[in-house]
Amino acid sequence: MIKVAICGASGYTGAELLRILHLHPEVEITAVTSEKSIGQKVSDVFPHLSNFNDLKYEPLNKLSLLPKADLFFMALPHAASQEAVSFFYNHGKKVIDLSADYRLSNPITYEQWYKTPHRYLEILKNAVYGLPEIYREKIKKANLIANPGCYPTSVIIAVYPAIKEGLIEPDTIIIDSKSGTTGAGRKSTLDFSYCEVNEGFKAYGIGIHRHTPEIEQELSLIAKKDLTVNFTPHLLPIDRGILSTIYTKLTKKVDTADIIEVYREKFLREPFVRVLEEGFFPNTKNVRGSNFCHIGLKVVKRTNSLIIVSAIDNLVKGASGQAIQNMNIMMGFEETTSLKSLAIFP
Amino acid sequence: MIKVAICGASGYTGAELLRILHLHPEVEITAVTSEKSIGQKVSDVFPHLSNFNDLKYEPLNKLSLLPKADLFFMALPHAASQEAVSFFYNHGKKVIDLSADYRLSNPITYEQWYKTPHRYLEILKNAVYGLPEIYREKIKKANLIANPGCYPTSVIIAVYPAIKEGLIEPDTIIIDSKSGTTGAGRKSTLDFSYCEVNEGFKAYGIGIHRHTPEIEQELSLIAKKDLTVNFTPHLLPIDRGILSTIYTKLTKKVDTADIIEVYREKFLREPFVRVLEEGFFPNTKNVRGSNFCHIGLKVVKRTNSLIIVSAIDNLVKGASGQAIQNMNIMMGFEETTSLKSLAIFP
Amino acid sequence: MIKVAICGASGYTGAELLRILHLHPEVEITAVTSEKSIGQKVSDVFPHLSNFNDLKYEPLNKLSLLPKADLFFMALPHAASQEAVSFFYNHGKKVIDLSADYRLSNPITYEQWYKTPHRYLEILKNAVYGLPEIYREKIKKANLIANPGCYPTSVIIAVYPAIKEGLIEPDTIIIDSKSGTTGAGRKSTLDFSYCEVNEGFKAYGIGIHRHTPEIEQELSLIAKKDLTVNFTPHLLPIDRGILSTIYTKLTKKVDTADIIEVYREKFLREPFVRVLEEGFFPNTKNVRGSNFCHIGLKVVKRTNSLIIVSAIDNLVKGASGQAIQNMNIMMGFEETTSLKSLAIFP
Amino acid sequence: MIKVAICGASGYTGAELLRILHLHPEVEITAVTSEKSIGQKVSDVFPHLSNFNDLKYEPLNKLSLLPKADLFFMALPHAASQEAVSFFYNHGKKVIDLSADYRLSNPITYEQWYKTPHRYLEILKNAVYGLPEIYREKIKKANLIANPGCYPTSVIIAVYPAIKEGLIEPDTIIIDSKSGTTGAGRKSTLDFSYCEVNEGFKAYGIGIHRHTPEIEQELSLIAKKDLTVNFTPHLLPIDRGILSTIYTKLTKKVDTADIIEVYREKFLREPFVRVLEEGFFPNTKNVRGSNFCHIGLKVVKRTNSLIIVSAIDNLVKGASGQAIQNMNIMMGFEETTSLKSLAIFP
Repeated sequence: MIKVAICGASGYTGAELLRILHLHPEVEITAVTSEKSIGQKVSDVFPHLSNFNDLKYEPLNKLSLLPKADLFFMALPHAASQEAVSFFYNHGKKVIDLSADYRLSNPITYEQWYKTPHRYLEILKNAVYGLPEIYREKIKKANLIANPGCYPTSVIIAVYPAIKEGLIEPDTIIIDSKSGTTGAGRKSTLDFSYCEVNEGFKAYGIGIHRHTPEIEQELSLIAKKDLTVNFTPHLLPIDRGILSTIYTKLTKKVDTADIIEVYREKFLREPFVRVLEEGFFPNTKNVRGSNFCHIGLKVVKRTNSLIIVSAIDNLVKGASGQAIQNMNIMMGFEETTSLKSLAIFP
Repeated sequence: MIKVAICGASGYTGAELLRILHLHPEVEITAVTSEKSIGQKVSDVFPHLSNFNDLKYEPLNKLSLLPKADLFFMALPHAASQEAVSFFYNHGKKVIDLSADYRLSNPITYEQWYKTPHRYLEILKNAVYGLPEIYREKIKKANLIANPGCYPTSVIIAVYPAIKEGLIEPDTIIIDSKSGTTGAGRKSTLDFSYCEVNEGFKAYGIGIHRHTPEIEQELSLIAKKDLTVNFTPHLLPIDRGILSTIYTKLTKKVDTADIIEVYREKFLREPFVRVLEEGFFPNTKNVRGSNFCHIGLKVVKRTNSLIIVSAIDNLVKGASGQAIQNMNIMMGFEETTSLKSLAIFP
Repeated sequence: MIKVAICGASGYTGAELLRILHLHPEVEITAVTSEKSIGQKVSDVFPHLSNFNDLKYEPLNKLSLLPKADLFFMALPHAASQEAVSFFYNHGKKVIDLSADYRLSNPITYEQWYKTPHRYLEILKNAVYGLPEIYREKIKKANLIANPGCYPTSVIIAVYPAIKEGLIEPDTIIIDSKSGTTGAGRKSTLDFSYCEVNEGFKAYGIGIHRHTPEIEQELSLIAKKDLTVNFTPHLLPIDRGILSTIYTKLTKKVDTADIIEVYREKFLREPFVRVLEEGFFPNTKNVRGSNFCHIGLKVVKRTNSLIIVSAIDNLVKGASGQAIQNMNIMMGFEETTSLKSLAIFP
Repeated sequence: MIKVAICGASGYTGAELLRILHLHPEVEITAVTSEKSIGQKVSDVFPHLSNFNDLKYEPLNKLSLLPKADLFFMALPHAASQEAVSFFYNHGKKVIDLSADYRLSNPITYEQWYKTPHRYLEILKNAVYGLPEIYREKIKKANLIANPGCYPTSVIIAVYPAIKEGLIEPDTIIIDSKSGTTGAGRKSTLDFSYCEVNEGFKAYGIGIHRHTPEIEQELSLIAKKDLTVNFTPHLLPIDRGILSTIYTKLTKKVDTADIIEVYREKFLREPFVRVLEEGFFPNTKNVRGSNFCHIGLKVVKRTNSLIIVSAIDNLVKGASGQAIQNMNIMMGFEETTSLKSLAIFP
């Protein structure tokens, strides 16, 4: 049994950590923080977490939290996370940071896109990008995990084998992603009110979304050369789910079946990646509430393209589920512990 | 051509007045007010109203508005409307008030439910409750229309013939209403954010909703005796539409067909009421975007009950459409002018 | 470990049995049947059940199924279930029937509402109505469980304490229920196509829905007198969830707090019933994907009424989850095994 | 007044023609056909068209239809339309064909994608592709209009100025389109049932969708060279609306503002095209129920790309509204007649 604290637990990713950890046999949740819900019971703020009726939100008082937990999940806003992460890390705790603060290894890139300097460069160097499908061995030994962004998770897993095996030109990638509205967090703004989002669909942040450098960093590492991508996110009128449609140029003439074989080989032992059969493509609904990533592949010979489609639940594999997967790996638990639930369909 | 101003035109009912009046051949919109959007173009606040790219929001400055219009639509919050209505009314303007401020003829009842006194009792006496199906003759001569609430519109039209013709016990009525989320207005609160409303359903304001006394007032007038009702509103995860399911006790043994005949007779000349054939029941989707009210009827002999189901679009027949219908009647225009659009289905 | 077969496993309740049983440590699924999907893998028909990629649908051949399982879940259409249930039951198997065929103890009532005679009267006598909150002791010893209907589950739990403790007149109950679209099953009919259901809302089966006699049977047993109810179902544009709003007449003057106390006392040891605090009411979204039933209560003094609101997930507590709860009780497993998942919110 | 018949009027595009033509002062609808609804009233099949309670569906008997109308809207399935169109055309009637049968000028391409030969090559030569923004002058003189597909309408208008003015490489275009579910027609198939579509999102027809050659034909004509495109459609869980996100390579260094200026100049006199201001992007919800096309533009300098986003209502500008716009142009009516309704928002 390890003791776990969640900092910033009144948002959707915090609630999702609680929902999933509730079934974890090795974890005791000892503290949850929220500035706006101080003193409230978790079960009052989130009636669906009715079993957490003894746990109350407390302020993020680092000194008083320190002795309470062995591992800290940080679900704070970007920038706000930097300092809190550094504190727990420096005091020898394991930290899994769901914010973007420790994802970009280049602090200049970070400052450019997040408009604030990075003030913990030494710690930044020790952060491991928490994508188990690529970095599992590093995660095992890490004390600080930068949990990947939701869009990047859906993209990097999906193009990893194609770039790695030299099947595509890494520098011509166009990523058209669509996310459910929980991706925006638990917000009371007009833009995310029901009547503005429902029955509509739109692109946003075209050319300027902050997940762009994160995707570029990881794809560049796989390709072993610097590259740029076109990344356009869209807002779907659904609660959960990201579908990314990725357009790439093939380096040689191959069939869809060849590509599928490469992908299946690469992901053979991955517990949460499913490469679909030829002619089948992912639907966000088939992964909803689960930690799975579904991938569909199609070679279009007319245009010499490989089109890759991936689906994840942005709150699970795209955030809290992957964070718990990282925790399991770090702590030496069975990697799928408390993550075996299949998707809720319909 | 009359000149029309809309006070409080940055909410959904204001936008709906603009959408419908856009097609009205006798109306020129000369002013729109909004405190929070001062100086902005209507077409920037509401991109769907792209033709209103010359009209800008101004503050509600009564003196400067006075000369600009012959008729004022007031789409202000409850209580805020009282004084503004009185000003334009006292200066000889026609006023159609979409708030609740002039709907309850008894100021004590108003104060009890709205927690604020009514300060314009003389004007209150002259307000006409703007339900054309019952008060058309009074509306023709009125200078101040209290435009009915959305829930009351869906209920009063639906039970009017049954009470009027003595078919039901007026004092045993149970009203279970369900409304789309636009009924809450254009709001940036967590409760009405997309992820909280979508894929959910709940009751609210049980036993305490402010439309209760409005329904009781009008049903009492029809029944010619004081009565109370059980009224429970619910929040539907749709944009528009109210469906009310109304449970009543029959006073005598009749068939569904008999009831339908009475209703059809009563509404024979009503341009916006449709009494459905036996075995057919309303769907909010069949009236969406239109000024129609659909009514379905069913006698349940096992329990000696008449169950009445009605559907309207809460923003049209339940608010802005009915307001324009009232304007047409007041001004001597053809009653259906600019209101002939059929529902958007699907 | 027990061996379990699911007859009729290509519908939503069948898939839900698989989803939940996937996490059950004491259960091995040995067979699934479906006439229309014979030979197909479960994971092809339902991509979200990707772990069931070895299990194939077979025809419902009773003789070949018999040796394969100790316990049979029957998720067949009404009427079709009668004979298959009798076969497995007569051969000494435990049977949990999710159809309506063994729910009504009076075969005349069954024939009246289901338009087909009951041909297994001896077996019918031995069927136990599988609502653990009332019949737990009988379920422990049962070999045949008639798993309750989704609407009846939401209603009977919700009014049970009020009738049992004499708080309400049992004969004046009006039940206004709203169900998500999965309640209609996995259907390819125009009425349940996306564009006809989405953004709409309607009542259906008014006065004639087949869950009416089931509700009346159980409430009559609680009240120890024959009674009738008004029951009106509605179709919600959501996937899962039933909310029932129930109108009752109080027998004496009480406060909401008094009623809540009675309910909490009654359900104190129930693992899946939550009686909400005063002023809080259920939302289907707070129970989605879980086996919980949430209940909210409100005394309306103006009309001397008790209004009860309950929410369940129609596919879980209203069908497959409750069936597994019944299995756990019958087999002596911990009652909550594989049912501890909290709701998916949002 | 012209007399108009609609062949195939029990689908969504047929219903939409009726909804819009209902307000057209120059049109009398004299016949509607539907094989599956013969003898039924329009208002029974579509309760939202409650004013059409005298009009009944008849079979598509060409000889008996011939004298009834001056202009025929053909809303039949692809392939089925070929012969019926030829009949009315050969008998001197004006025909607007909403199917794909007369859109592809090359019959070999038609056969390749639609798997059936074109048997009316002489008539095919006289068909005019009914996109008023490009072919208005030809439409004026046409007797047969091939009304554009929904996806192609959203794409061709959106890239027309960019190709025409040489701003982009025409041969590198990637089109990621997302459509509401009405795009699939009024269907009773499992794939389009509510619970399968709702809260989900998926790509379909990747690399093989039949609108691909239509888009390529028109873009090639604009570019004056043969080109291919990558076109991927997706299914949105909304009723109406298409959003196309289009990725293109710039031919020279320009700013977003420069591009917007070119577009505004090009569409200056177009009644239904709105080029949004810099920083604004379309939302399907802002055009729902209207004949408008909204276009947003963004130059991404990092990748030297122009990203174009367009939104239309697939049933209006993408089908029936554009058909009526074409009728207005052909018949010499004011082009916007009965098409002035603004979008229904929310």
